[in-house]
Amino acid sequence: MNFDLFSNQFRAEIDAYLIKHLPVATSPYCEILSEAMRYSVRAKGKRVRPLLCIASYALFEKNLYKISPYWAAIEWIHTYSLIHDDLPALDNDDYRRGELTNHKKFGDSTAILAGDTLNAFAFEHLCEELPLHFSPDKCLKAISLLAKACGLNGMGGGQFMDISAERNGTDADVLFIHSAKTGAILQSCVLGPAILTNCNDAVYKLLSNFGQSIGLLFQIVDDILDVTESSEILGKTANKDILQGKLTVVSVYGLDRARELAKNTYKNAQNDLSKIGNMGYDTEFLKTILDYFLERTY
Amino acid sequence: MNFDLFSNQFRAEIDAYLIKHLPVATSPYCEILSEAMRYSVRAKGKRVRPLLCIASYALFEKNLYKISPYWAAIEWIHTYSLIHDDLPALDNDDYRRGELTNHKKFGDSTAILAGDTLNAFAFEHLCEELPLHFSPDKCLKAISLLAKACGLNGMGGGQFMDISAERNGTDADVLFIHSAKTGAILQSCVLGPAILTNCNDAVYKLLSNFGQSIGLLFQIVDDILDVTESSEILGKTANKDILQGKLTVVSVYGLDRARELAKNTYKNAQNDLSKIGNMGYDTEFLKTILDYFLERTY
Repeated sequence: MNFDLFSNQFRAEIDAYLIKHLPVATSPYCEILSEAMRYSVRAKGKRVRPLLCIASYALFEKNLYKISPYWAAIEWIHTYSLIHDDLPALDNDDYRRGELTNHKKFGDSTAILAGDTLNAFAFEHLCEELPLHFSPDKCLKAISLLAKACGLNGMGGGQFMDISAERNGTDADVLFIHSAKTGAILQSCVLGPAILTNCNDAVYKLLSNFGQSIGLLFQIVDDILDVTESSEILGKTANKDILQGKLTVVSVYGLDRARELAKNTYKNAQNDLSKIGNMGYDTEFLKTILDYFLERTY
Repeated sequence: MNFDLFSNQFRAEIDAYLIKHLPVATSPYCEILSEAMRYSVRAKGKRVRPLLCIASYALFEKNLYKISPYWAAIEWIHTYSLIHDDLPALDNDDYRRGELTNHKKFGDSTAILAGDTLNAFAFEHLCEELPLHFSPDKCLKAISLLAKACGLNGMGGGQFMDISAERNGTDADVLFIHSAKTGAILQSCVLGPAILTNCNDAVYKLLSNFGQSIGLLFQIVDDILDVTESSEILGKTANKDILQGKLTVVSVYGLDRARELAKNTYKNAQNDLSKIGNMGYDTEFLKTILDYFLERTY
């Protein structure tokens, strides 16, 4: 299946859900903060995390709408992390998804708080909506997995390492940073749906490996695109990693070997998927996303 | 009961739990971020939120340790909110709890991320530890209450209003800001334990009112102390509200009427407590905290 075809099947619903369920300000004083939250959620993201969640959930269930609260929370959390990462104190980026970053539009203080309130709301929504479809004990496990993926040894720590690592770090360093910064959340997209359904241990283990590989693949390709594509195509500043002297897969391995690493990581993920497929699960959606992660150009 | 006596009974345990359960960095790269999280948690806070939680839980249960994950999460969230509030883009404060603020010690980027990872960890800990003592459906309700209290119409929105409100706002404005910024979380300290136990509707309603009053009282007294006490006693910069032209209860009402408002709010809370006491519950701990909230000098 073609990624665009797969994406188009869900994109409108994802975009609508993400905006529709955001909280409404009860005071006129909070209107601008509410607007700042909406601004970044509304920006044209690729929504790969929701799509990955849906693809994983499709292994186990046909009623795909039930997993919506989980991917929505992940996308809100992803959005908050972008808002904070773009701040002058961190990556200092002016453009994101082809538009002004949140702090360029609303100011630093509002951007910090818009990130914080999106983060809080993601957990509120999970606690309110997930139990409508899944048992409370499974809900708590799936929420815990996600919270952990956001924390010190996940996204937050990964972002910290990303801004503090030396450009002359080792290959092990950069892979560790990538698996924490991007990988942990992408792995949650794959594993959260498995926790919420009746996934057996063997499949869970394979999905865990697959999730790790696909997270790494995404970030390797991100590093490659930073040096090979224009800002216009990326919707964010190109060559940013080099300009900021960041430790990336390209800075460590060079472009050719980075591409090779991407292909090997792809093959590992493909291998895990084949095994899951051989156990009788329909892996078409996950395969579509995996192919896209390797071949994407922005 | 005297507040110091009550506080001393639990303070050592609270301080130890808050540090002991923080996540450990799995990579040496994250050591400094981990240290930044610990730095602000370790700072000498009054721990009024944990104590309020314990006091509320004591209405219903004797094994007080069971509520620990809930107050710990609240204190970590409170700590993250202080770290973010102190940032140059927001309140720009150099001292907090008598020590350098997080960003003055570790830099802005680390402070932002330390706040974010404390926030994520609070939810992880709640999902992991609360179900060891309470039913999963009650856990989800109590976590949701807290997440909501942190969000757009709670702490986050309140902080936004606090930095954006004009000093010449109305009395209704300032009361709204205070109930969102400080009140929502303090109310959660009172209501979370009630949700987790077998609290009946009548008591819940009274506790809800009590929680609202005690939250408001806390912030009114904060506004008063800002103009009547020294930085040395407060452990943070005195007269900060006036210098920053903030809308406070004192700026709206003047000092005498602010004190009157504090007393009236105290009486409302006292009234709710009496009713709860008349229904056979031991309200001594809550009464101790209420008295302290009115009489505290820092």
